[in-house]
Amino acid sequence: MNLSMIGYIVAMVMEIEAGLMLLPALGGLIYGEPNGLSFLITAAVTALVALPRVLRRPKNSAFFAKEGMVATALSWLIMSAIGAVPFRVTGQIPHYLNALFEMVSGFTTTGASILLRVEDLDKCMLFWRSFSHWVGGMGVLVFMLAILPLTGAGGQKLYLLRAESPGPQVDKLSPKTRNSAVWLYGIYLGLTVLCVILLMAGGMTLFEALCLAFGAAGTGGFGVLSSSFATYSLFCKVVATVFMLLFGVNFNFYFYLRLRRVKDAVKMEEVRLYLGIYFFVSLTILVSLWHGGFLGRDAQPIDAFFSVASIMTTTGFATVDFDRWPTYCRMILVIIMFTGACAGSTGGGIKISRFLIYFKSLAKELRRIVHPRTVRHIRVDGKTVEDGTLQNTFVYLIVFLAIFACSALVVSLDGFDPTSTFTAVAATFNNIGPGLEIVGPVGNYASFSWLSKVVLIFDMLAGRLEIFPLLFFFLPSTWRQHS
Amino acid sequence: MNLSMIGYIVAMVMEIEAGLMLLPALGGLIYGEPNGLSFLITAAVTALVALPRVLRRPKNSAFFAKEGMVATALSWLIMSAIGAVPFRVTGQIPHYLNALFEMVSGFTTTGASILLRVEDLDKCMLFWRSFSHWVGGMGVLVFMLAILPLTGAGGQKLYLLRAESPGPQVDKLSPKTRNSAVWLYGIYLGLTVLCVILLMAGGMTLFEALCLAFGAAGTGGFGVLSSSFATYSLFCKVVATVFMLLFGVNFNFYFYLRLRRVKDAVKMEEVRLYLGIYFFVSLTILVSLWHGGFLGRDAQPIDAFFSVASIMTTTGFATVDFDRWPTYCRMILVIIMFTGACAGSTGGGIKISRFLIYFKSLAKELRRIVHPRTVRHIRVDGKTVEDGTLQNTFVYLIVFLAIFACSALVVSLDGFDPTSTFTAVAATFNNIGPGLEIVGPVGNYASFSWLSKVVLIFDMLAGRLEIFPLLFFFLPSTWRQHS
Repeated sequence: MNLSMIGYIVAMVMEIEAGLMLLPALGGLIYGEPNGLSFLITAAVTALVALPRVLRRPKNSAFFAKEGMVATALSWLIMSAIGAVPFRVTGQIPHYLNALFEMVSGFTTTGASILLRVEDLDKCMLFWRSFSHWVGGMGVLVFMLAILPLTGAGGQKLYLLRAESPGPQVDKLSPKTRNSAVWLYGIYLGLTVLCVILLMAGGMTLFEALCLAFGAAGTGGFGVLSSSFATYSLFCKVVATVFMLLFGVNFNFYFYLRLRRVKDAVKMEEVRLYLGIYFFVSLTILVSLWHGGFLGRDAQPIDAFFSVASIMTTTGFATVDFDRWPTYCRMILVIIMFTGACAGSTGGGIKISRFLIYFKSLAKELRRIVHPRTVRHIRVDGKTVEDGTLQNTFVYLIVFLAIFACSALVVSLDGFDPTSTFTAVAATFNNIGPGLEIVGPVGNYASFSWLSKVVLIFDMLAGRLEIFPLLFFFLPSTWRQHS
Repeated sequence: MNLSMIGYIVAMVMEIEAGLMLLPALGGLIYGEPNGLSFLITAAVTALVALPRVLRRPKNSAFFAKEGMVATALSWLIMSAIGAVPFRVTGQIPHYLNALFEMVSGFTTTGASILLRVEDLDKCMLFWRSFSHWVGGMGVLVFMLAILPLTGAGGQKLYLLRAESPGPQVDKLSPKTRNSAVWLYGIYLGLTVLCVILLMAGGMTLFEALCLAFGAAGTGGFGVLSSSFATYSLFCKVVATVFMLLFGVNFNFYFYLRLRRVKDAVKMEEVRLYLGIYFFVSLTILVSLWHGGFLGRDAQPIDAFFSVASIMTTTGFATVDFDRWPTYCRMILVIIMFTGACAGSTGGGIKISRFLIYFKSLAKELRRIVHPRTVRHIRVDGKTVEDGTLQNTFVYLIVFLAIFACSALVVSLDGFDPTSTFTAVAATFNNIGPGLEIVGPVGNYASFSWLSKVVLIFDMLAGRLEIFPLLFFFLPSTWRQHS
């Protein structure tokens, strides 16, 4: 294990975070909030602490899968740990673990909150909270570009741009990859700016539009009001629905568009399945609401489309308390918590591309039972899925379910009802935010025990980083010298 | 598709069922219940209808995986459809679909009931209900011996006796297999008789002991009292716990014992994991009950051991209303609904042997990520698991989860709470019986809609027959002539 290289990367990440913290500090200045100073101080200390490590480049730059995963897990942890400090020192979130929960939720683009009333926070704090979604979303894109291919997880279709992906040493990027990366962040930034402008056109202030666009872009879900999206205009809700969906699309789609390969873009099986599921779920919920007499009274059509986009892309904004909808609506919303959005997007969950492979494997197996002699490969977008990818995709489901079950058991020790327990884990592990019952759209995570919060923090990180990096981080064998 | 061969097998099954129905008819005679006559009439009609088909042996006896699966699915369906007739004609269960639900629940050894008060039924009816568990359990053993190997599902370790398994034509059995089969049924019968004797020693009447031993042997769960096992003596509860566990063990274990290969028996990884999980879950539940102040007041230690054995072996007897226990207890009981018992037993669920393969795959994948060049195979009990088996084991999980999600969505249309909806599907699909909330140990399935009952009937059959046979039965392509 090349510890000095990992230390170097983490130090770099710390410097970046210190730089990012100047924004909320500036926000504090603008809004005349003395608490904004805490960001400046935290940033200065962080930058200073990390400086010696950044200046001394390690000689041995060997970097393999294990290093990549440990560095990733550590980066997300340290980002959150440092990001939580201003909340604690200003007393805006009195307990450090709660502040850490909030920031892990931010950087993992989950949006699960321990706050009873977000309005009690300073604006600079709310800004930082939402901004962490945007940073986390961008981090996920780097992560998929650079780290995941090292693990062998994926294969060319499962994750973005595998063939072009570099190691995490940015200075070694080939010009081609560098261009891709720049273009990727360009899309991310461009869509965010567009979202901000449209939300402002819908009547939001700049502050609100920025925070909520950050949430939509990172598929986070922190709002600036306890009522989340409920009080905004219909236009804003439509804009948010569209942008949540856009950020849940595999970014390869935009790549194809840029290369003017519109046909390839439109043909992407994952994107088609993603939109197919989206519209199927939205329409059946609409029918269920209408049939149950909710439509027009407690819910508008936009609420169905908004909620499904919000849950499926794992964003987590809410326009209504969907926990009061008919059981069918709540059930199918819980199910699409697990499907999640496309791979190669800022969304969480198991990812549509994996489900595509699962369903194709099932079809293949049925054929094999009837015609044992025919050997056929699984193809996605016309390309054969390699055995290694297949194996990894299946094992992902196993480890996902195993961690899910263990987490649910630990959280169940708090004694809340099974639905709250189950959906609290589902909503954090899939990086969504709200679940049902006590963690529903009008609830929060404040009442869980410390132990449960630690487990949910683990789940948010594991879900965001596709499990394996975090798993390796906690495996003792990773840290043994000889391996 | 060799339809005449399938017809021949189904006709044989009908003749067997007609014969079996003479037992409850005799019961009706003994207890002086006129309703017993309904069994005699149903048996006579069934035997007559099936007779021409049985006498005319098909010339073409070609029999492949698809035929085996269709014949199996059809047999279970027809057994249940005929078995339900006496309930309907006597009016003991006024609606035929309810009677069908009850008998599918019986023959699939589920034990889910639509009855509000079982005491309202005649004794001959209760006997038939419980007897169907025993027949179903024996049917599962035939099924595993004969049908599953045809599908290519399994591999030698996953299912019982694969290497020795014959086609379903009993007269073609080799002497060796015939011996194995006879010995298998000997064990099944012997353990049942022993269970009856011990239950009677614990204070039960012959009738009660027979019915409950049938339930334990088939891992069914129908009782003869609404209170299930609550009012019986401690001795009976201990006996039932032990026998439920014994019938949940892979029958290969008993085979090894018979061959005096005690070491091989004791070394069986599946049996070890099965017992390991059993004791872990039981003990943690005991601690949770003690910690919550339940122990001694609302629950005794035996209740923990009994409930875990009952759920894990997918039997479904209850000594207490475990739905009132702490959330941790209910949560872990729901989780072991899915693990189920050993393959090669009468139990349902996903089966411990599959989990063994899942966990070993996970360990292998973690190793592969760190050392991409090492190719290692997964071994169970020292034997390599073939790629086909691996593939089938994974796909099983996919199709399981897919059917589970679809079923839960349909059942959710009834508008019951999520926990009831979820556990109703879990308890039928895994062939257990009781779930939580309205389908808890003191509840039943009466209040579900017709649509939900049809879906749950499908789930019980699918769960019992390892999904694929039922899937093929309903696939249109199976019935096309050319394939």
